Amino acid sequence: MNDARQTFTITGDFELRRGGVLRSPTVAYETWGKLNDNRDNAVLIFTGMSPSAHAAASPADPAPGWWEEMVGPNRPIDTRRYFVICVNSLGSCFGSTGPASVNPETGEIYRLDFPVLSLEDVATSSKAVLDHLGIASLYSLVGPSMGGMTALAFTALYPAVSRSVVLISCGARSLPFATALRSLQRELIRKDPAWEHGQYPDGGGPIEGMRLARKLGMITYRSAIEWEQRFGRERIAEERQSGDMFAPDFEVEAYLEHHAQKFTGQFDANCYLYLSRASDLFDLADHGGSIEAALRDMQAERVLVIGVETDFLFPVHQQQELAKAIEAAGRRVSLAELPSIQGHDSFLADMDSFRPVLCSFFNGDWQALSKICSGS
Amino acid sequence: MNDARQTFTITGDFELRRGGVLRSPTVAYETWGKLNDNRDNAVLIFTGMSPSAHAAASPADPAPGWWEEMVGPNRPIDTRRYFVICVNSLGSCFGSTGPASVNPETGEIYRLDFPVLSLEDVATSSKAVLDHLGIASLYSLVGPSMGGMTALAFTALYPAVSRSVVLISCGARSLPFATALRSLQRELIRKDPAWEHGQYPDGGGPIEGMRLARKLGMITYRSAIEWEQRFGRERIAEERQSGDMFAPDFEVEAYLEHHAQKFTGQFDANCYLYLSRASDLFDLADHGGSIEAALRDMQAERVLVIGVETDFLFPVHQQQELAKAIEAAGRRVSLAELPSIQGHDSFLADMDSFRPVLCSFFNGDWQALSKICSGS
Repeated sequence: MNDARQTFTITGDFELRRGGVLRSPTVAYETWGKLNDNRDNAVLIFTGMSPSAHAAASPADPAPGWWEEMVGPNRPIDTRRYFVICVNSLGSCFGSTGPASVNPETGEIYRLDFPVLSLEDVATSSKAVLDHLGIASLYSLVGPSMGGMTALAFTALYPAVSRSVVLISCGARSLPFATALRSLQRELIRKDPAWEHGQYPDGGGPIEGMRLARKLGMITYRSAIEWEQRFGRERIAEERQSGDMFAPDFEVEAYLEHHAQKFTGQFDANCYLYLSRASDLFDLADHGGSIEAALRDMQAERVLVIGVETDFLFPVHQQQELAKAIEAAGRRVSLAELPSIQGHDSFLADMDSFRPVLCSFFNGDWQALSKICSGS
Repeated sequence: MNDARQTFTITGDFELRRGGVLRSPTVAYETWGKLNDNRDNAVLIFTGMSPSAHAAASPADPAPGWWEEMVGPNRPIDTRRYFVICVNSLGSCFGSTGPASVNPETGEIYRLDFPVLSLEDVATSSKAVLDHLGIASLYSLVGPSMGGMTALAFTALYPAVSRSVVLISCGARSLPFATALRSLQRELIRKDPAWEHGQYPDGGGPIEGMRLARKLGMITYRSAIEWEQRFGRERIAEERQSGDMFAPDFEVEAYLEHHAQKFTGQFDANCYLYLSRASDLFDLADHGGSIEAALRDMQAERVLVIGVETDFLFPVHQQQELAKAIEAAGRRVSLAELPSIQGHDSFLADMDSFRPVLCSFFNGDWQALSKICSGS
């Protein structure tokens, strides 16, 4: 695995937005399709908080990616037509420099010496990858969840680079409810004695804290209505019951346990803390005092904003707010409010709803798009 | 304090619904107002998971109660007219027998030797209090949250005892989303080493686990929209910032911390685990195979069901389901869907919305009630 992964190392000092410097940080990315002669058919994808750059399978890495059904030949983001780039966010742990990386100045792992990370830093370091690839103009910039906020940061910083933007299940900022949930997730990790105030040994860390944080994540990524339909009051099979009065008893409890266990060990705890905090700290209005000011110079010809009615981390009024501000900036914007029942995770789980929207957008079929969306 | 608290000890063995026996358990309760000569003006209130029987101030205990604005002279449940009884649930730790009580058979604290608790047991033990007080017929039975499910259990078991029922922010059963949240809360408590597998010393226990569980509780008891209006992106004052990168930074984080700290030490952890599990286990349909069957013999002349649009622990479709089943049982039912923004906790926080509904109901002003409610 990881044969598909490419890296670009930024030369010299990379200054972070909230202070602090990284010496020659690396950004990992993967690509699919071919850059055309005009070098103008690239689509840049920013990820949510935890995925790697492996959005889709490729000959070099045939394992299914995190957005497998969305990226590839004959898929909505069609790699026969577009040169698709997905970056692993700066601060993450899948090839890009982050708190789990070695600080070249000290030879030690950064851990909590990593400076405060912001989504603007993720955007800026990704722009360096585009420069490295000789891409001055993107066909599109796409981001779901935290990736959507990163795309907004990118747009505020580089308003003329992308000719279209797709913002999915995100908002101009984190609301206090989402911040409260992420804050509690971080606390669950930090309260695990194995976190060792961030000084856990390489490859170790707060397994229990990460497992509990992931459970809380799973609860907030999905929706009540989905689980009601999926689990109802089903109990786990007798043979799986342990006799412990408080062990999982309902199917929904076993489901959470299963997914939480799958996650632990995959993601570095300090990286999780930094990226989680970066999501809380992001506020598009920091760029000029309002979200309208932040988007004033945006040059994209087409913007698609997608929200999901059952998403309570980034509720639809946040996408409505974005669409309105983008329209005020004179951009053509389509707003899709999808009835998916999978909550915030619908962009990963409900392809039947997402596929037609993205297909229409990437095929330039504005008539089909207008049937799904409101807006211009 | 506690001068207002009365107790009744059930003589002999008290068999629990899911197996196990308590020897001579005690139920604590408080009363307000006077029982009339016909002994038919009593209102029985069941509580949510954590309150004591102290619903309101009284001469014997002038401290404000958990439902102070709702119970008292000239208040919606008017104690000049009604004899109001509030019980501390069996299994709790405010005078009623629970896991923190001494088992008279062994002289040891029950802890995890307490049998599996069900809300039916809370109902049955409260019925013993009514018998003790010589009350054969209630004017009304009232329950918010877990108390609403207890009132449903009571109704299924004693369908002819109450002439009216008020069910607030509850449902016929716990949905998997609520179960998932409570399951995680229980896990946060059980993972605290100070829980000691339930064997923590009297007065000790998992302070950290309870604090974290309470934070998660606070998140699920309120609503995203309330916090957006209340906190927005406000940061805590500089002087309260600790320099710790992951310490509370936003006001919403400080608010959660404050409330979680207030809660710890007040509630016994094992009692919390038992009552939390009892909420998950409750299913009205266990009484006869369906909620319609469970309510078939209900004799109440009037039923009021109240839900809140922003409650995501017990969403309004659960109150709609209850109202429909109660109507199918031939009872007159009014359904109020309130637009309060305080989520599940609205019955404690939004008196402006709740007061008129309960006032109309307890004054028998059906015309005023029908303006707020749908139904007969």
